Amino acid sequence: MSKRLNRQVQLAARPEGFPKPADWAIKEETVSELGPEEVLVKVRYISVDPAMRGWMNDRPSYVPVLGLGAVMRALTVGEVVVSNSAAHRVGDWVAGIDGVQSYAISDGSQYMKIDTGLAPPQTYLNTLGIAGLTAYCGLLEVGQLQASNTVLVSGAAGSVGAHVGQIAKLKGGRAVGIAGGPEKCAYLIDELGFDAAIDYKKENLYKSLGRACPDGVDLFFDNVGGDTLNTGLTFINVRARVVICGAISQYNETKSFQGPSNYIRLLMRRSRMEGFIYFDFRDKWPGMLKDLASWRAEGKIVCREDITEGPVDIFPDTLLRLFSGKNFGKLMIKLPE
Amino acid sequence: MSKRLNRQVQLAARPEGFPKPADWAIKEETVSELGPEEVLVKVRYISVDPAMRGWMNDRPSYVPVLGLGAVMRALTVGEVVVSNSAAHRVGDWVAGIDGVQSYAISDGSQYMKIDTGLAPPQTYLNTLGIAGLTAYCGLLEVGQLQASNTVLVSGAAGSVGAHVGQIAKLKGGRAVGIAGGPEKCAYLIDELGFDAAIDYKKENLYKSLGRACPDGVDLFFDNVGGDTLNTGLTFINVRARVVICGAISQYNETKSFQGPSNYIRLLMRRSRMEGFIYFDFRDKWPGMLKDLASWRAEGKIVCREDITEGPVDIFPDTLLRLFSGKNFGKLMIKLPE
Repeated sequence: MSKRLNRQVQLAARPEGFPKPADWAIKEETVSELGPEEVLVKVRYISVDPAMRGWMNDRPSYVPVLGLGAVMRALTVGEVVVSNSAAHRVGDWVAGIDGVQSYAISDGSQYMKIDTGLAPPQTYLNTLGIAGLTAYCGLLEVGQLQASNTVLVSGAAGSVGAHVGQIAKLKGGRAVGIAGGPEKCAYLIDELGFDAAIDYKKENLYKSLGRACPDGVDLFFDNVGGDTLNTGLTFINVRARVVICGAISQYNETKSFQGPSNYIRLLMRRSRMEGFIYFDFRDKWPGMLKDLASWRAEGKIVCREDITEGPVDIFPDTLLRLFSGKNFGKLMIKLPE
Repeated sequence: MSKRLNRQVQLAARPEGFPKPADWAIKEETVSELGPEEVLVKVRYISVDPAMRGWMNDRPSYVPVLGLGAVMRALTVGEVVVSNSAAHRVGDWVAGIDGVQSYAISDGSQYMKIDTGLAPPQTYLNTLGIAGLTAYCGLLEVGQLQASNTVLVSGAAGSVGAHVGQIAKLKGGRAVGIAGGPEKCAYLIDELGFDAAIDYKKENLYKSLGRACPDGVDLFFDNVGGDTLNTGLTFINVRARVVICGAISQYNETKSFQGPSNYIRLLMRRSRMEGFIYFDFRDKWPGMLKDLASWRAEGKIVCREDITEGPVDIFPDTLLRLFSGKNFGKLMIKLPE
């Protein structure tokens, strides 16, 4: 086995607000020899997700706190390059949580094998991975979507939001999306088939929501938090479901999150607000992935990819693009072969 | 039929903040003759509830907006004194929504007949009415209480909170109450059987909650809102239910409600926050009332009454006592016979 170098992005400090260069350390080390039953995976795609900001904090969450000096946690797709495990063959593609590094050694038990004949590998970080599954779980399991529902989606041009709108449509709902800028709004209508799109940067959100949701909102899938969540709550119908998927507007706040003062609408409208993590629905993923794959094959679901190519070193800047809203489509890093 | 005078408290203006004397008008008029099929009820007890503050606003809610000049909406218990309806006999006791006035004429269809042999009439505004039913619906229907749950109740010495803690206990849960002052805290422990009581006026709520809920909170029944809701959210467990029953700390805010910045815990803990109105469970009331009556008969549920006697004129001051936290037990007005 030739000497391989593993380049890693490690968490060097807990950021205050937006992560700074000094919050990261880039290290390189020789890949060690595999033990028995171990596999070596070369990471090929790294998923760049809003949740990553939360993973950098020293606060209890749905995943263990990441220690300083640890490799930054990230969803990945990679290729098995050496294997001492009967369960994995060289050349297999796998999806996992290998982090922001170029190689990973493990016993391979956490990997999901992926079929690159069915879809290109990066699709397993998008429609057939975190984005599609998050939308599916949030909309159908947590949100209990009913045909005829008006579904409001914030961060609608993001990878999760894009899937939410399209799944809502194919299940008979009406999809209204909130996004930033005319290009993203055109994407919602022209490529994704949303019924209405609101440009929060230009429009008065309250007025535009009133126009776009004349019958109110039955299901509000919120990725954004802050004023967007609060204003959306104004329009919920009786027995609405407000699905809390994220709060990208708030993740870099140095003080506390902005709380939705209109939460009291939950009482007036006898509605619920519920948070979820798509990992909790792991048991149901096989059926969900089957649906997602066939919707994708039928052209009912599309999602732009925003892929930056480069070594792991580009990760810190790429993550900041996500919070600036400058990415367009599912943000990923493609590592050099 | 002798001339009867109906004394009414009418809504004269929309209050800003706490209702002022000028927001009310007290009027007296002769009770008119009954039409065919109508009944005349003499109001005997008026329920004074936090929700009343919301009913005074000119904003959409779960009940129609009260017009200026209308009799203030209130839950009541009264006695049929004249009847042209086969369904109601003179001497019958009924619970209804007759408002803050001494007499009411109607077709009687909205009344629930009550059995004053089973319990004194005012009990139908307490354990066998709004307080008991609200606690029952919120805890068992919305909150889906499980035995072994730790149940946190804010406004715990209030009439709803008192019932929540006791029902939680008799269903096998652990009840932790938040109330204001040593007397109310002693009431929670000594009379109602809560496992722990926190005096929010004296204690640091965060620290005390940490001590009182070492295993976290599975069900948070919130009557208070504001900092109490926000701090309680810090302690919720995975799949917790946060039941929004009210927000008494916020009803007289002249700006907007305080939003709970910790709502994002709903995501981290995959939990839900849900509002409800006990009226929505009307179909299930008969069974609930049967349970409540037997628990009451067995001495498993008690609740103090805080009854002020006087004409309807005392209503404005009585309502303010509720918001000052000076009431102790279910607040009611008993009208003169």
